[in-house]
Amino acid sequence: MSLLVVGSVAFDSIETPHGNVDDALGGSASFFSVVASNFTKPRLVGVVGEDFPQEHKDLFKKKGIDISGLVTEKGKTFRWKGRYHKDMNTRDTLEVHLNVFGTFNPILPDHFKDSKFVFLANSSPVVQAKVLDQVTKPDLVLADTMDLWINIQKKELLELLPRIDGLLLNDSEAMLLTGESNLVRAGHATRKLGPKFVILKKGEHGAMLFSEAGVFVVPAFPTENVIDPTGAGDSFAGGVMGALASDNDKSPGSLRRAMGYGTVVASLTVEGFGLDKINSITRKDIDQRYADYRSMLAF
Amino acid sequence: MSLLVVGSVAFDSIETPHGNVDDALGGSASFFSVVASNFTKPRLVGVVGEDFPQEHKDLFKKKGIDISGLVTEKGKTFRWKGRYHKDMNTRDTLEVHLNVFGTFNPILPDHFKDSKFVFLANSSPVVQAKVLDQVTKPDLVLADTMDLWINIQKKELLELLPRIDGLLLNDSEAMLLTGESNLVRAGHATRKLGPKFVILKKGEHGAMLFSEAGVFVVPAFPTENVIDPTGAGDSFAGGVMGALASDNDKSPGSLRRAMGYGTVVASLTVEGFGLDKINSITRKDIDQRYADYRSMLAF
Repeated sequence: MSLLVVGSVAFDSIETPHGNVDDALGGSASFFSVVASNFTKPRLVGVVGEDFPQEHKDLFKKKGIDISGLVTEKGKTFRWKGRYHKDMNTRDTLEVHLNVFGTFNPILPDHFKDSKFVFLANSSPVVQAKVLDQVTKPDLVLADTMDLWINIQKKELLELLPRIDGLLLNDSEAMLLTGESNLVRAGHATRKLGPKFVILKKGEHGAMLFSEAGVFVVPAFPTENVIDPTGAGDSFAGGVMGALASDNDKSPGSLRRAMGYGTVVASLTVEGFGLDKINSITRKDIDQRYADYRSMLAF
Repeated sequence: MSLLVVGSVAFDSIETPHGNVDDALGGSASFFSVVASNFTKPRLVGVVGEDFPQEHKDLFKKKGIDISGLVTEKGKTFRWKGRYHKDMNTRDTLEVHLNVFGTFNPILPDHFKDSKFVFLANSSPVVQAKVLDQVTKPDLVLADTMDLWINIQKKELLELLPRIDGLLLNDSEAMLLTGESNLVRAGHATRKLGPKFVILKKGEHGAMLFSEAGVFVVPAFPTENVIDPTGAGDSFAGGVMGALASDNDKSPGSLRRAMGYGTVVASLTVEGFGLDKINSITRKDIDQRYADYRSMLAF
């Protein structure tokens, strides 16, 4: 089933205890679509500057990603620079240059408007709403958000929530949004704001799903080989939405399996810098780890 | 199968955002044995002062706990006072009065010496070793420890580790013990120090098991009703060891199921002050939540 992602395409410069990379291909839409390409043929809407090389576009195309919605504008591509601490769970943002992404006004190509599964990657809820306005009749819309929008565009975010099926956010952001200090309460309270389901991301501790079927928790896949956590959240979303779109099923059972796939692909992404690892694997690798993960959880 | 616990019996005074209690029955051996009494008839070794009321001893007896090893010494019972922060995950210790527990020299009654399952609750590794010296031929020994002993008696702790089957400790303590900043690496590295298996407790994020069968992760049971986290770790241990002793099975599969029981009883304990909740429930309540937990994890 058709899967649309609207988000950032960026250059990331990353410092970790394991080494550094400069200007690696990154951004939410990149991680999401490369991961999701293992499940379906994603449609990507984003913006890059004139400095964005053809080889990255070729990579997307090679993965079966439809980049008709990736526009090139005058100026430079979004750049982010960050440094991870020794525990790899916390990071400092050293530089952010929004460049052409700062005035991003996503326009869907006509043949994207019938998309059935839609991921609104983290951006202003105003922009996210504008995307939704262009999709004719989506089956399932998942939106990501962050503390910035809760702080500066809470009204707009609250207006968006009843329009989407699922909201994806960090545990601390759900507590910020709802004022609840208990994670379970925060998840339920977020759901009451409108979305049919809520996914709380807990980083190395996994994720929680709140839906009509109750609470479902998944621990992270325990990898000892964390090279670079950048893109883990968007990879998780790519696995979730990729699995849902490929099943064309949004039942509680399908959502659970999709959370499993999201967990597994996130654990693969962090085992390399930027897109290095997730770009080099196949659906078979994902399915193998998924099988390992399921058997690891069973008791 | 016989199950021995050696640990503290204490009075806890607790402040939380939900209210306060003064001089509630607490201590590692209390939580452990009350929980484990749902699975088997635990044997308790500990020390209290002359101020320890008969009603608490009667409670232990009513639960089927053999308190032949609970000695009363001149002086006062161990007292602890703590205050939980709003998120209920962090706490400040306001007062510690070791009293008679400060010079605790555990002597096992003769009929405890053949115990097959042994839990050495958190105390000095020197004291824990002295207990082990008195047990004739244990089948499975689980020891708890904490950052204090890693800091001040690391040598003694390292001597104890090859003598035990399982070590139970917090994630941050495993990182302190091994110098590893990744949890999975820290777990494996801890196991290399001698114990056959290692359980890393992650509080509200669950626990991880490292054994010959690999890594196994369990998320915490998501409760929105956290009243008082005191005793969660010892309740977890009581569930794990209670289930193992009652199955008389230490296979990897049994360890996993036992981790599930530990998770479930810990989630019950935190739903009341001190022993309030866990003291009022039955094995049926535990099994019901265990069933809920298993179905919540399945996908």
